[in-house]
Formats: sequence, structure tokens, C-alpha cells
Amino acid sequence: MIKLACFGAGRIGQIHALNAAAHADVELAYLVDPMTGADRDLLAARTCAEIAGSDEVFADDSVDGIIIASSTGSHAGLLQRAAETGKAVFCEKPISLDFALTADIVQKVRESGIPCLMGFQRRYDKSFRQLKERISSGVSGRLEQVVMFSRDPAPPPRSYVETSGGMFRDSSIHDADMARHLLDEPIASVYAVGSCLISGEIGAAGDVDTIMITLTTRSGRMAQITACRRGPMGYDQRLEALCAREVLTVGNQPQSTLSVSDPLGCRAAPPENYFLERFAQAYGDEMDAFVALLRDGTQPFAGIEDGLEAQRLVEAAAQSARTGEAIAFGPGWAPDQGD
Amino acid sequence: MIKLACFGAGRIGQIHALNAAAHADVELAYLVDPMTGADRDLLAARTCAEIAGSDEVFADDSVDGIIIASSTGSHAGLLQRAAETGKAVFCEKPISLDFALTADIVQKVRESGIPCLMGFQRRYDKSFRQLKERISSGVSGRLEQVVMFSRDPAPPPRSYVETSGGMFRDSSIHDADMARHLLDEPIASVYAVGSCLISGEIGAAGDVDTIMITLTTRSGRMAQITACRRGPMGYDQRLEALCAREVLTVGNQPQSTLSVSDPLGCRAAPPENYFLERFAQAYGDEMDAFVALLRDGTQPFAGIEDGLEAQRLVEAAAQSARTGEAIAFGPGWAPDQGD
Amino acid sequence: MIKLACFGAGRIGQIHALNAAAHADVELAYLVDPMTGADRDLLAARTCAEIAGSDEVFADDSVDGIIIASSTGSHAGLLQRAAETGKAVFCEKPISLDFALTADIVQKVRESGIPCLMGFQRRYDKSFRQLKERISSGVSGRLEQVVMFSRDPAPPPRSYVETSGGMFRDSSIHDADMARHLLDEPIASVYAVGSCLISGEIGAAGDVDTIMITLTTRSGRMAQITACRRGPMGYDQRLEALCAREVLTVGNQPQSTLSVSDPLGCRAAPPENYFLERFAQAYGDEMDAFVALLRDGTQPFAGIEDGLEAQRLVEAAAQSARTGEAIAFGPGWAPDQGD
Amino acid sequence: MIKLACFGAGRIGQIHALNAAAHADVELAYLVDPMTGADRDLLAARTCAEIAGSDEVFADDSVDGIIIASSTGSHAGLLQRAAETGKAVFCEKPISLDFALTADIVQKVRESGIPCLMGFQRRYDKSFRQLKERISSGVSGRLEQVVMFSRDPAPPPRSYVETSGGMFRDSSIHDADMARHLLDEPIASVYAVGSCLISGEIGAAGDVDTIMITLTTRSGRMAQITACRRGPMGYDQRLEALCAREVLTVGNQPQSTLSVSDPLGCRAAPPENYFLERFAQAYGDEMDAFVALLRDGTQPFAGIEDGLEAQRLVEAAAQSARTGEAIAFGPGWAPDQGD
Repeated sequence: MIKLACFGAGRIGQIHALNAAAHADVELAYLVDPMTGADRDLLAARTCAEIAGSDEVFADDSVDGIIIASSTGSHAGLLQRAAETGKAVFCEKPISLDFALTADIVQKVRESGIPCLMGFQRRYDKSFRQLKERISSGVSGRLEQVVMFSRDPAPPPRSYVETSGGMFRDSSIHDADMARHLLDEPIASVYAVGSCLISGEIGAAGDVDTIMITLTTRSGRMAQITACRRGPMGYDQRLEALCAREVLTVGNQPQSTLSVSDPLGCRAAPPENYFLERFAQAYGDEMDAFVALLRDGTQPFAGIEDGLEAQRLVEAAAQSARTGEAIAFGPGWAPDQGD
Repeated sequence: MIKLACFGAGRIGQIHALNAAAHADVELAYLVDPMTGADRDLLAARTCAEIAGSDEVFADDSVDGIIIASSTGSHAGLLQRAAETGKAVFCEKPISLDFALTADIVQKVRESGIPCLMGFQRRYDKSFRQLKERISSGVSGRLEQVVMFSRDPAPPPRSYVETSGGMFRDSSIHDADMARHLLDEPIASVYAVGSCLISGEIGAAGDVDTIMITLTTRSGRMAQITACRRGPMGYDQRLEALCAREVLTVGNQPQSTLSVSDPLGCRAAPPENYFLERFAQAYGDEMDAFVALLRDGTQPFAGIEDGLEAQRLVEAAAQSARTGEAIAFGPGWAPDQGD
Repeated sequence: MIKLACFGAGRIGQIHALNAAAHADVELAYLVDPMTGADRDLLAARTCAEIAGSDEVFADDSVDGIIIASSTGSHAGLLQRAAETGKAVFCEKPISLDFALTADIVQKVRESGIPCLMGFQRRYDKSFRQLKERISSGVSGRLEQVVMFSRDPAPPPRSYVETSGGMFRDSSIHDADMARHLLDEPIASVYAVGSCLISGEIGAAGDVDTIMITLTTRSGRMAQITACRRGPMGYDQRLEALCAREVLTVGNQPQSTLSVSDPLGCRAAPPENYFLERFAQAYGDEMDAFVALLRDGTQPFAGIEDGLEAQRLVEAAAQSARTGEAIAFGPGWAPDQGD
Repeated sequence: MIKLACFGAGRIGQIHALNAAAHADVELAYLVDPMTGADRDLLAARTCAEIAGSDEVFADDSVDGIIIASSTGSHAGLLQRAAETGKAVFCEKPISLDFALTADIVQKVRESGIPCLMGFQRRYDKSFRQLKERISSGVSGRLEQVVMFSRDPAPPPRSYVETSGGMFRDSSIHDADMARHLLDEPIASVYAVGSCLISGEIGAAGDVDTIMITLTTRSGRMAQITACRRGPMGYDQRLEALCAREVLTVGNQPQSTLSVSDPLGCRAAPPENYFLERFAQAYGDEMDAFVALLRDGTQPFAGIEDGLEAQRLVEAAAQSARTGEAIAFGPGWAPDQGD
């Protein structure tokens, strides 16, 4: 049995803790969350995990790995302690909102050699995965252009926005990761625009709510990301990949297969509510991949370097949107200091 | 130039007259309609046709063919005079609401040897045509089951119902023809049910407004027809063909490619309003086929025998619905006298 | 905790046993299956159930209910013992292939007063359920016509066919139940045709593989069922409900949301493989409903009477197909003896 | 009757000449094309137009307007002569590949006061038109983002590329016009990238074949254009408009409503072949609009200023792609000289 501890008992922590506990090869030994309350206790009861503190987890040599699903500010410290104590890590994005710290932590994780899975769950979604595999198989021909749509059902509250690091870092990192995953080639330029069109509160917090990003690769292939904090049809995550011989599309997943036709037309069911429902299958497969990493050494679809690189991309996008200038992006690029 | 005359200046007459007049090889010489009025005069002006009476048309030896798009009651007489004077005929369905008269007229047309195209325009619709051709090509494998949906936007007025011959004869004849066209094998049994569910006026006129029909062929292949005088989404004409290797579907044709997504789902545009819009392409190709019949002797997709046979089928369906009994249908079957 | 026993460790038994064991309010105490082997042992291990014999289960007064997911021939006997020992039952269809025995057992269950859920899982599928609820809400207007498509991915082996009771009893019972569920009114007539078109083996076993059924209700509303043992696109289960104000459609559930466009068109993903995948959510909700029945007395969507009535309908359909005659169907109708 | 002359008897000239000749209020008096041949003669015969030279047309005071559908290089000269002789103009894009000349000619047309319709036919396509009208009606809420897909079925030959002005000027001008039409607000920034990914011949001609463009408006609203000289599914022209309350989508128009389902999925028919088929309805309505402009003074959806402005936008896009820099775009912006 693989022994795990889960940090965080919020909505994403619940998903991971339940998936871990349900896995035949896993014992979820500890649940760590400073927020006392019924939610945490219920989750502990359902997963048969012991409620514990961080020190207890890192002191327990029998713990093979940790799941970092706690608040963003805690990620870097937990990664560092995992590196120091030699525990594998399943880490939710981002590593840190401070890019210099992120780069530093990734260096430490790299040196420690601990196995690490970065929580870009979309790579495990069966539709995105089939798309990636189809392109990799060569049947589609060369991938030339990627267009992504990324919209949340509704803008987050101002309190969330203020600690989120901003829409580029908080939200577009998933799209940036998918662009990297699919293009599979160094990025050469980044251009972005951002506006505050839908929420005065978000503007007051100094953030944007509506974004467009353009990326190019060294060989001239391209990606566009269209993102908004508000999706009129709900959670709206789609992708189109233009390849030499085919166009591949990942659509939204309707809540049911019921459609209703009347004089106004034929109406399909709206998409799954939000990421927990939309990516339920992906979160399950992601946990399986973490177990396979620990048990068999199978490399996951996304590792700590992917976390760093996706973050570097959204840093560049944020800087481009702020300055109005396209950014020549290379392996050495880092955001302006004090940004 | 092929010289034609058109009987009827109503909505279907207008379609055919305009298509004929626009054809490079056709001169539409005469327009015949007892209803005087602006519509008739405008149509004559737009088609450069002379307004004439029947006698004038049949006496003019230079007229190659006639288009019968006048009221149902006039069809049989016009067919007979065309047979007597050796003029080709493009005949709208039905030949006559009186089956015995229909059989008699078809016999006369047959003996006269005049070329005849029966106005089952769906056979010329590009979607139905592609479906038929795909099955004929063998790529789909053997056709096993056909399911048809046939709904009008709204029930007709009582006055129409009273002279229509009833829903089976008036409406289901198109579906019966399509079933024959696709199955391409003698029909062995006919079963139908009919109810008056949506319009008290239709019931008061002694007719039904909601129908289901089941047909089988000698080899055991099958068709179902589902029909209603009212389609909540408008004009609703769809067909599904189960073949050994594929399922083929003809859907409705949306009015535009605009779709609207909101929290209730993604809504595609409603279907084309009614048969004139939905089958505009088919009516055009049908006229081309009539010209090709006269000019080159190319056989049309539907001839006078198809008109008779489709009518025999809906007579059987009407009788089945009335008696509640399935009908053993063979080449010799004829409706009970006095029906 | 509710204490259950599961009879049957085959594919459907596995689904129900796992769902039961995963339920927070259930202890799956026993697993009963005469087939020894790795599958049974693994299932017992995963569900923490004890492998036991029937006598042990019925002798244990602490067992609240049983799940009958064993072979068809055993259902009647288990139901009878459950009735005698006062245990609630979750029973897979059919009750028995012998209609007289079915009627007798249902009478015994009725008299015993034991709670019973009949395993018509489609009633719990979220799409079919939303359709039913939308109609019940009145928003769609009166339901007038139901059309169902029901196709398996591939014909079953001859050995299965020979003990299945025939396609009507084995397969169409689900569609018959859904027709009853939606129309919610006594059935007045049943007509069916069946052919052997796709599998010589099925014909050699005396069965059909291709079916069409027409039902009417007392008030003249209608349903058509189109079924085939082979679906070219895989497992193909769709339904269209014509209501006065809307057309409601339940489509297939694609395996993913990836679509591929090339010069031949835009291709959506094929449907979920088979009933276990397609109805995974429904099986889960069905087990929840069984628990709610035992815990709170909440009536399930389908009870033992629904099992009897759906079977009566398919008996009528089978008889109609055999005789070629439509059947006047009433509450007293029973199949001809010796059928 | 309105008297028109058509310059150009190529594929787009044929469309316009036939539409003009079929209009009840139009006499197509002249057809002008230096290319002698059967095509020109046949078109003249079908439209009853006289084959003439330019001088003859401009000398004929009874000619109300001209249709400019001749080669690009001739547009500016014809516009100038129309301005001088007071004839209305229906002008295909572009005005000229030389931006300074374009600006000069537009100034002359403006001063002359001749009525002018610019041939951006998409504005007349019923789907794009419904989208525009729905946004204008206010029902969708504020338009925030536009994403356009624009792909030709196959790359043009090198000879075409060499005289086309390049992909931005030749192809993206339609998308730039649609972005302006929908956003309906001054453009504030333009950024573009272009690569040669699919055709070595296009690269050898110094052009690109794959493009992405980002536009912003003064208030921060945005548009992205994704374009390629090759569309794997054929002619691929789609648009998505994110509004505050709805997402509006214009999809491709399938060639038929036939779909084919097999084990690989459900395949809808591919899009209409190319712009002549896809925009047949739009070209017809555009000619109606030109007639309405002459007859009633009704302003068309696009005038000569729209031609100039769309061209200015694609000049900016081309310059951005060449320099790698985003362009601050204002009313005074003009391309660098010698570009």
C-alpha cells in the first residue's frame, strides 16, 4: 500500500482525498487542514484519514507522498519540506505567485529528485487526452494552430481576486499549459491584451476579467487563448486544433443528452456546471497517475518543470498586457523585477 | 426549346412556373388558372407566359408538356386529356382522391405512352438523394429499417381538411413514397393507427391529426412513419435508415447557421419554415428532370406508377387505422369499396 | 446501517454490489453466486462481503434486503423466498420468462407487502429522468407520441439467445417499460413485427433480431419502438417525445467531446460502449433509491407491478409478431397458453 | 428600370451579372471584359447584356450604375471614372493594393457623392446578419469578444499569390471588415503573426499562409482572427461572439443534412465547397441592396469608407506581422511608406 497525506480539505482537496482513499493501492493516512470544522471532519471520516498537522506528516517516514491541495500561499513551503524529506508530491497549481520563489523551489525539487506530478488535470481529461494522442499518432498531420476558449460561469468575488495573483496567473495558466502540451516546442513570442469589461469589482482590485493571448513557437506555429471570467452558457472550456489533415475540437460536456426543440430552435443541454463536475474523470485518472508514479515510476503527463514553464508563460502574458508590447520569449526570459 | 404550359397559379404552381421559365431550354407558353386576380397576372408577367384556357393548351400541338399544379380535383381530367393529346406531364400528387379513378387514369396514361413525372419532390432533395445513392452504392450495407418523422408546422384549417381526402391520403403519401423508394421491394403488410389529439376541428371533420404507420416488405425489412399535423419546432421532416454497416440520417435544414448559447443550453436555428423553403432545391432539380425527360428521355425518379403505388399504400394505411387490423398487402390489394 | 445481500457476481451483479458497498448507509453482508472463481472472490474482497449460500442469507434476520442480479431462472424463487422472509428486494428484470409464473410471484410479493424496486435503470438515467420530469411539470404540454430506438452493439451468441426468452422478452422489455413510464395511461393496442435480418444463428434459434412495435393508449396517444440486435454505431438508445409544445429528445452519450473534421465532414465521438458505461450514473442512482426505499420508505420509480406490466406488454408484442395481428390490450389480457 | 453595366465576367462577375439580370427592376445593359471567349459570350447571352468596352459604358448617360467585378488592378480606375461620370458603384474588394492610391480614390468618390456599395457580402449573409441584428437589438448584452475562423479549402497557386497583395490584404480583409462591423467602435491596437507553414510556393513568393490577428477597441473589447490558406474540412468560415448574456456562433453551412453514423462516430456533411456556394444567398441580397440604394437611396451595409477602413486594418496587421510589434492604431494611422 502507498501511504499518502492530503493537505487541504476544501473543494479540490476533497476531490483528491476521496480519489486517493478509493484507490485500491492507497492508504490515505493523514488529512491536514488548519481550518477546523464539519467539512474537514466529514472528509476525514469518509476517507478514514487521521487529522494531523504538517510536522506529524513530514516526520512520518512511512508516508510516501503528499497531495498539496491547500491554499496557494502554502504550496512552496510544502514542496520544500517534501523535497527535504524525500516525499513524492502531487501539487496543485501554482507553485507560488512569486515567480522568483517558484523558480527557486523548482530548482530545489529538481535537485532532491523527488517524484512530482503537477496538477494540470486537463491533460488527463479523456477528450483532451484523445486529442493529444491523435496528434501524436501522426494521423492528423502537423499541428499548426490552437484556439482555446476558457470561461468561468461567473466572476469570482473581489476577495478571491485580490489574493489570486490576477487572472493571467490564476486562470490562464491552465490554457498556457495546454498550449505547451499540444505545441510541444519552445515558445518564441507572447502577446496579450486584458480588459476589465464585466466586473467593476475586479477592476477596483486592479485586475482584468477578459483576456486574449497569442503565442508563437520557434517554427512559427501559433496558439490563441480567449478567456473571460464570465461565460454566459456556464463553464465553457473548448479547444480547436488545426492540423494539416484534420481539425480537432474538444467541446463542452453537456449535463445530459436531453435536447428540447420548439419554435425557437433545438436546444442542447448546457455544459457541466464547473470544473469539479467537468473534470471529475480527469481528477480520477490524475490520482491513478500519481499512484502509478510512486508504484511503478511511470512518468506523469505533467511534472514540476511544466508548472514552472506554464507560469513563465503567463508571467509573460501579464507583462505584455501591462506594457502593450509583444514579448520575445526564450528559455532565459523572466518577468521584470518588482512586477 | 421545350414548350410547356402550367396549370395552377397557387403557391406550388408559382414554384413550378418560375422554375420552368428560368430554365434555359424551356419556354413557358401558357399559364392556366380559373382564379382571376393579381397573383395570376403577376406570375404570368414574371414568366412571360400567356394566360389561357385548357382547350387552348391542348389544341396547341406545339406544346410539349404540361405541369399539373392545379387543385386536386382537376388532376385526373388533365392527365386524361394529356394522354389523349400526347403531351408529357409533370403531375403533382395525388392523381385523384378516388382510388378507382386513380387506377383507371394510370391505366390510360400507361397505354398512351406519354412521358410522366410524378411530383414526389423529396426524391430530388439533395439530402434524401444522397441517402438513396449511398444505399444504392452498397457502401452502407443492406437497408433494414426506415423511421420517418413528418410534421407540419400547424394544423390546416377545417376547410382544407374537408377536401383533402384525409391525413393519410393528403400527407402520408409523401412518406409512403419515400418508404417505397428506399426499400425498393414489394410491401407485404401495412398497419396504421390514427388519432385526433390536437385539433377538435379536424376531429369534427372526421379526420385524424396524429398517425403512426408500420410497413414490412416481403423479405421482412421494415419502415415506421410518425406523423402529426403539428410540429412544435415547425416543419419537421426527418428520416433515419438503419443499414447493416451504417445509420443514415436526414435532418431538418436550419434556417441559418446561427446558434445562441445561454444558461439554458446551446440553441440551433429552427428548421426552414415550410415545404416551399425546405424543398426549394428539390423543386428546381425536379423541373430539370422533367426537362431532361422531354429532351433526352432520361427517366425521372418518380413516374405515374409511383403515384399509384404510394396512393395504394396510404389507402391501406387509412383502412388499417379505421379497422384496427393489419393488412396483408400485395400487388392485387385494393381498398374496400365505398371506403 | 442497512444490511444487504447480493445474488449474482456477473457483470450486472458487480455493478450493484459495488454501488451498494460504496453507499455510506449500506453494509453489503453477503455475496451469493454458485459460480466459484476469481471474479466472485475479487468482488467479495472489494465489497468486504462474505461469500455465502442462499439459505444463510434468508436465515439471517438482520439482512434487510436482497439484490437479485443472478441468472434469470433464479429470480422467481428468490423473490418468493424474500416474500416469505420479509426481505426487501431490488430485482433485475425479468421476474420470470414464464408469464404465468411471473403473475403468480407478483401476487405473492404484493400480498407479502415487502418493499420492491424493479431494475428498470433507465428511469434513473439523468437524461430520461429530466425528460420525464419536464413532461410531468406541464411545460412541454401533453405527450402525444413517443419514438424509441434501441440497438445493441452486436448480436448476442446463439447460446444467449436460446435461453433469453427471445428478443421481445429480453430486450424490448426496457423500451416497453419506458413507454409505460412516459405515457402513464393504460395501453389499448399492441402491434409488432419481427424479422431475422442480421444473424442466421438467431434465426436458427427461432428468434428474431429486428423489431418494430406500435402501442396506443386508451386516449389515442402512441409509441413506436424500433429495435435491432445490431447497431452500426454501437450501443444506440435514443428516444423522441412529441409533446404539444415541444419535442424532447434523449440522444446517445458520446464517449468523449472530441470531434474530428476532415473533407468527409465533422465526426462526433461514438456513443458509450454498452449499457454498463451508458447507464453507470443510472445504476448508482437506482441503488440510492433502493436505500431510500428501505431507510425512508420513499417509493422507487419502478416497482414489482411495473415489472409485471412491462412483461405483459412484450408478451403481447411477441404474440402480435407471431400471428401478424394487432392485439386489443386491456388489463385482463394474458398471452395465449402454451406460447 | 435601373440600367447597369458589369465589369468582369469571371466567377464573381458571373454571380453579380446573373443576380442583376434576374432582378425585376434591373436591365443589365453592358458586360465589359477584355478576355474574349465562350464564358463571356455565354454570360452575355444569359443576361441579355451587350458586350461593350469601358468608354461605351461611361459615355452612356442612361447607365445608372456599374458593378466592378474585374481584376483588382482595374478597380481604382473604374471607381475614378464612375466618380467623374456620376455613376453609382457596386465595388468588389479591394479598392487597390496600393494603400495611398486607395485613400486617394476614396477621397474622390466621397467628393463626387456617387452612391457606393462595397462588396463585403458576408454582411448580407443571413447568419451573420441575424447575429449582427441580435446584438444590435440589445438582447445579447454588450459584445465583448469576437473570434473568427477563416480557412480556404486549399492554398492558391503561386501565380495568384504573387499578384494578390499578400494573405493579409487578400484574405483577412473580409474578417477585418466583419470585426469592424460587429465591434462598431474605433480600433485601438492591432497585433498579428504570420507564418508559412503549409506551402513552400507561398513562402517562395514572399507571403505567409497561416495568420493570427488580435484587435482591441478603445473601450477594451477584442477580436481574434485565425486564418489559414488551407482548411482540412474545406471552406471553413466561423465566428463566435461573446456577449454579456449570450454566446452567438455562426457555423459552417453543411452541404446537406445527411449524416452517417458508424463505429467511428456520427459524421455530419462537410461545409459548402467555397465562397460562391456558401454565400450565394448573400450575393443575391447584396445585389438587392445595390438596387435599393439606386432606387430608394437605402444605405447599404457597407460603403466605400468601409472598404478603406478594412484595408487600413489589414495594412496594420501586415506591418505588425512583419515587425513583430503591436501597432497603436488610430484614425490617422497609415502604413509605413514603401511597405
